[in-house]
Formats: sequence, C-alpha cells, structure tokens
Amino acid sequence: MKGVPEHGGVVNERQTVRVDLAERGYDIVIGERLLETADDVLAPVIDGRRTVVVTDAAVRDAYLPRLAAALDRLEVRWDTVTIPAGEETKSFGELEVLLDRLLDLGVDRSTVLVAFGGGVVGDVAGFAAALFMRGIDLIQVPTTLMSQVDSAVGGKNAINTRHGKNLVGTFHQPRLVLDDVSVLASLPRRELLSGYGEVVKCGLIRGEAAFGWLERNASALLALDTGPLIEAVRLGCETKARIVTSDERDRGDRALVNLGHTFAHAVETEAGHGALPHGEAVAAGLAAAAALSAKLGHCDRSVVERVRNHLRGTGLPDRIAALASNRAWDPGAIFGHMAHDKKTIGGRVHFVLLGGIGAPFVDGTVPEDAVLEVLGGECGRP
Amino acid sequence: MKGVPEHGGVVNERQTVRVDLAERGYDIVIGERLLETADDVLAPVIDGRRTVVVTDAAVRDAYLPRLAAALDRLEVRWDTVTIPAGEETKSFGELEVLLDRLLDLGVDRSTVLVAFGGGVVGDVAGFAAALFMRGIDLIQVPTTLMSQVDSAVGGKNAINTRHGKNLVGTFHQPRLVLDDVSVLASLPRRELLSGYGEVVKCGLIRGEAAFGWLERNASALLALDTGPLIEAVRLGCETKARIVTSDERDRGDRALVNLGHTFAHAVETEAGHGALPHGEAVAAGLAAAAALSAKLGHCDRSVVERVRNHLRGTGLPDRIAALASNRAWDPGAIFGHMAHDKKTIGGRVHFVLLGGIGAPFVDGTVPEDAVLEVLGGECGRP
Repeated sequence: MKGVPEHGGVVNERQTVRVDLAERGYDIVIGERLLETADDVLAPVIDGRRTVVVTDAAVRDAYLPRLAAALDRLEVRWDTVTIPAGEETKSFGELEVLLDRLLDLGVDRSTVLVAFGGGVVGDVAGFAAALFMRGIDLIQVPTTLMSQVDSAVGGKNAINTRHGKNLVGTFHQPRLVLDDVSVLASLPRRELLSGYGEVVKCGLIRGEAAFGWLERNASALLALDTGPLIEAVRLGCETKARIVTSDERDRGDRALVNLGHTFAHAVETEAGHGALPHGEAVAAGLAAAAALSAKLGHCDRSVVERVRNHLRGTGLPDRIAALASNRAWDPGAIFGHMAHDKKTIGGRVHFVLLGGIGAPFVDGTVPEDAVLEVLGGECGRP
Repeated sequence: MKGVPEHGGVVNERQTVRVDLAERGYDIVIGERLLETADDVLAPVIDGRRTVVVTDAAVRDAYLPRLAAALDRLEVRWDTVTIPAGEETKSFGELEVLLDRLLDLGVDRSTVLVAFGGGVVGDVAGFAAALFMRGIDLIQVPTTLMSQVDSAVGGKNAINTRHGKNLVGTFHQPRLVLDDVSVLASLPRRELLSGYGEVVKCGLIRGEAAFGWLERNASALLALDTGPLIEAVRLGCETKARIVTSDERDRGDRALVNLGHTFAHAVETEAGHGALPHGEAVAAGLAAAAALSAKLGHCDRSVVERVRNHLRGTGLPDRIAALASNRAWDPGAIFGHMAHDKKTIGGRVHFVLLGGIGAPFVDGTVPEDAVLEVLGGECGRP
C-alpha cells in the first residue's frame, strides 16, 4: 500500500526522517494524502490501543473524515476531543479542561493521544499527554507548515503565562509524526509563508546546498508543487531531528534551532503576542541575526544581502521595519525584552550567530551596543 | 566537617544512598542535624547559582533558620516562596500561582529550586521545577518521614483533579535529597507512624533480614532513637532507589513499590481524600495484599499474621476495619474504586502480591471474587 492510495492518481513517494533518541526514537513520515493512507504506519504504534484525537473545530471539519478512514481500518476504539482554536488555548485553564475531559472519557495509561492540528493543538495536546498520569503515548499529526517542520518535531510543548509565551512546559517526545503536505493546500497564504520562515532558518543552519536549493525552489514549493514541498518539509524535519538528537533537553546544540529567535521573540513581545505570525518574526529575526553576525565580523555582508533577498523574494519581511505593522519599532524596547527571554542564562543574552551559511554558533558575549546598533538599522526604513 | 556540626554533641554518621540513573543520578544524604551542616553537599549542586526555597509557613517558621545557615555560607542569592499547607495546594490553580511567583522573582533556567517540606511541598515544588521553562534543577529537603523515605525519592510529582489524586504529574528527578532525621522529632506521632507504614512496605519488599530488623527495632526508631531512625530511612530510600533505578518511568518493576497501594488508594477514595493519613491506608493495604496473596496460595497464612502483628504492635491499623473511622466499610464500594486507579492498564486491575516476605510480584489476573472475599474479611471486625 505504501504510497499508493486507493483513490488512485500519481502520488509522490513517502519520505521518512528518523529522530534517533534510542528508546524514545521515532519516525517522521512525510508524504501526500497520508491522512487516509497512514494506517500502515499508525498500526504498529497504536497497536490495538484506545485512541483519542485532540483537534480544533476547523481541522475536525476539514480533515477528520480523512484521518478517520485510517483509524477505522485499525479497528480500535477512538474518540475526538475538540479544543478551542487560538493562542489563548495555551493556558493552564484550557489544559485542565482537556485533562478533565480525558478523565471523563475514562482514558487510562495505555491510551494513545493524537494531536491533530496546528501549533496550538500540538502544544496543548502534547502537554496533556506529558502530564496525564505522568505521560501517555502521543502521535503528532500537524496540519500547518510551521508545525510540520518545527513545533511537532522534538518533543517540546508549552503554554503561556502572563509573563510571556512558552514559559511553562515539558519535553515529551511523540511516538510518530505524520506530515501530510496535501493539507497545506488550504492554508492561508500568509500562514504558509510563516511556516516557510522556519524552513529558511533550516536552510541557513544546514549550508550552501540546502540554502541554494531553497533559493531555486521556493516559488515552486510555495505554489504547492508537491515534490518540492515534500522536500522542503523533509529539510526542515531533518534539520530539527539532527539537532534534537544531539541535545534533546536543550542544554547546548539545540539552541542552534533558535537562529533568529532571540530577535523574533523580543519583536513578538513588543508587538503583543498573536499580533504577528511567528514565522514572519523569525524571518525578520534571521535578517537581524545575519546583520549582527556581519557587524561582529563573523560573516561577510553578502550573506546578509542574500538572506534579505531570499526573504523579500518569497514575500517574507526582510527586516523588522518590513513587518506588517502600523507602528514605529523602538530598538530600545525590543532590546529590553531580550533580557527576559527563556534562553537567557544567568542574566546573559545568548545569540545564535552565523559564521557563514551553514555555520551557526551560540555566542553569549555579544556587546550590548552592537545589538542596539543592529536593532536601530533593522527597525528603520532601509 | 562531615558529621561534626559546630554546635557540638555526638552525631551519627551520615549515610548516602545513590539513585543510579546515569546522567540523572543523585545522592540521598541521610543524617542528623543535616540542615545546618549540609553546605558541603549543597555546594557542588548549587554551584554558585541563584536558589529559591519553596516551603510552607509551618516548616519555614520551624526549620528555615537552620537551612538558612547552610545556604548563607554558600554565598548565593536565595529567596523563599511560601505556599499554603495542605492537600488542596496540589491543584492547577496553586501550581500556576507558584510558577507566576517564580517568574515575578525573575527566576531563570539556571536557578535551583529547593522543595523544603512534606509531601505536598515536594509535589508542588517538584512539579513547578519540572515545568518551569521545561525544567530547572531541584533539591528535595523533605521534613516528614513519609516524604523522606518515599515521595521525595524517585522524581515523581503530581497534583489532584476532581477525578482523583495524583492523576496529573511528571517525572523530574531531583539533583540531591537531604533527609535530616532530627526534624522528625517534632512530627505528630500519628504522622510519624503514617510514614512508618511505607517503611514496613519496604521491609516486606526487601526480605527477611530487613523485615526482621524492623520487627526488632520499630519501638526504638518510633521513639526517635537516632541510630535506628537513620537506618530505617536508609532502608526506605535504598529500596525505592533500587526499584526506581530498574524502572524510572514506571513501566514495569516500579510497580513493586505499590505493594498495598491498590487497596490503599481505593480505601482513601472511599474515605474521601485527606480523611486518612496515607500511611495508615498503606498499612491496612499491606495486610490486605498479604491476605490476598495467601488466599491465592502465593504465600503462607503465617506471613499475613506476621504482617498484622507487626502493624498492630506499632499502633498502625492491621486491617481496613481497624482504620480510624466511624464508618462501616463497604467492600463493593472499595472494589469499585480499584477500576479507576491510575495503575489500571487496559481495564485490568494490577495487584502487587507477595510470594513471601521479600518476594513481591505484579499480577494482572487476580479473579474479582477473590478480591471481594478478601475485602469482606478486611472490612469486617476480626
């Protein structure tokens, strides 16, 4: 059955990326029309056990019938729990509501939770799976490009507090991730682009071959050409998988996936959470990180221009000033938010810098005035 | 300095039990007047980092000055956060309040949390340490016998929901556990005895030498004779450490530490949570587990009598009917609660039975009528 769904038609081969974490290792399966054909990969993980799909109303209405086809063929008892869409769901209140609903359903330690939706569903369902009776099995079936390449991979989950985003959470690796790129066709263009911001980050982390491939193929994949789209998702997942494998608990190398994110988080805090799509802030953050790297002499100015050109070419912001906003950005205010970032260790802000394309590194000794000067440039009109 | 505090007087040697979990391994240090002399073991763990002590008002007032002496000598910045005493604190609401207070204090990922108190403090502070920025370092300084021998060791934490106790939680191993037996002198007798219920369980798990030692030394240690008290705490910690080492995530052998607990949890649910000290329910549960084991032919009736005699001799209940309560116990109702126990897997109740003293094993195939018959006997007057 692999890659040959019953509905016929030409289907691209599935790609599998392994997240190699010994007994917590798992596969990310990437392909087209996976939802309705994935019973072969779901079967060994679910293994006859009761299953609960956690989703939101929009994903349920658009895609649940397709996933249901695969689940029904497994002949297990499965239920659906719908949680509210939107960032506000990432709260203790909603987490408690979800856990209580699982208890109402009589879920036990052998039950498998399926997180079926975008980043919010993945975070809240993943957190619930981590905490329910101290941990039950989780399958991630992400439905946005952002979650397919980033948030559904690596086991992190979190909720927000009044102090900021993702300050409270756990590590809980899924047993399987299913990335069906066919669901991306109905994503709003802006959300697709936002996810692509993380893919650009992966290209910059990986090197010339990957980033060059993105420069050549971005238009095709953003036009939802399936082959390049699968390849881009694979690039994202493989990059994250490699880094997670080397540093599951985020004590060292895993920081590299935060290229651009120190700037992005500070900009998001300044804009008010939810005001900007995350990937747009990441795109602007990538440009800022490149600019800071060049300013400190770690890479050539041409790297900065190449990053900006690629972002602009796809329609992503190429600097903080290009972020959709009616506001004037205040470099000092953005800088102030950095000190409160979760990655701040013992009071020092850690930046991921570029020694060139494919050469990211962490630097905890960046002078404040260099950061402020770069922020001044990024916040002003070019 | 080891074992020779400045205030003079004869001090028993410290005992150290290692919980051998590779990079998550840690020491349990057991001794007398440890609070004020423990800076030598605290120093390498705290390592100059900012520290926050989470405690309740009673422990703070009684013992914080002693721990403060050791912390002050480390010359680190340390603060205290006080949480309400009592089982009601094990809720999402109080967990969120605690996490917000840590954020208010500007705690970051390098901060060390010290859980200083009984089981509730250990659970809530341990849970907060697990979730705060996805995990910060934790030191357990338990102040009850129950938490010294059981809840502070092994990394489990949890809160309660309207569906029951400890249904939501995580695994988060501490970096160090400090068991100062001198604080047990001010425990109410009933609370000391409750903790001793878990020690009896450990004796039954370990074997003839350990259980025989308890039979000979229970009076002395319950009279707070320091030498035997340290030895009893060591027995409890060592038993838990061995089992946790073989099965950190509670997928197999760790179930053995639940000897007596399937009965105990069901009785506690029937009584209403908080109505009975946990260790009293465990004591009655140990007698019931022995009786069930004998009924099924796994051990001799003499084991049951020996367990009951020892429990009765210390003042602990030797059967469910002996639990302090004005109620008549309903075997059917207690049985009904077992099906909802967290340890229930795929609908089957798993019991820890005794093949003899020192020979616990898990059995998921116990016939319902045998359980009901044993419950009938345990709930009736002897």
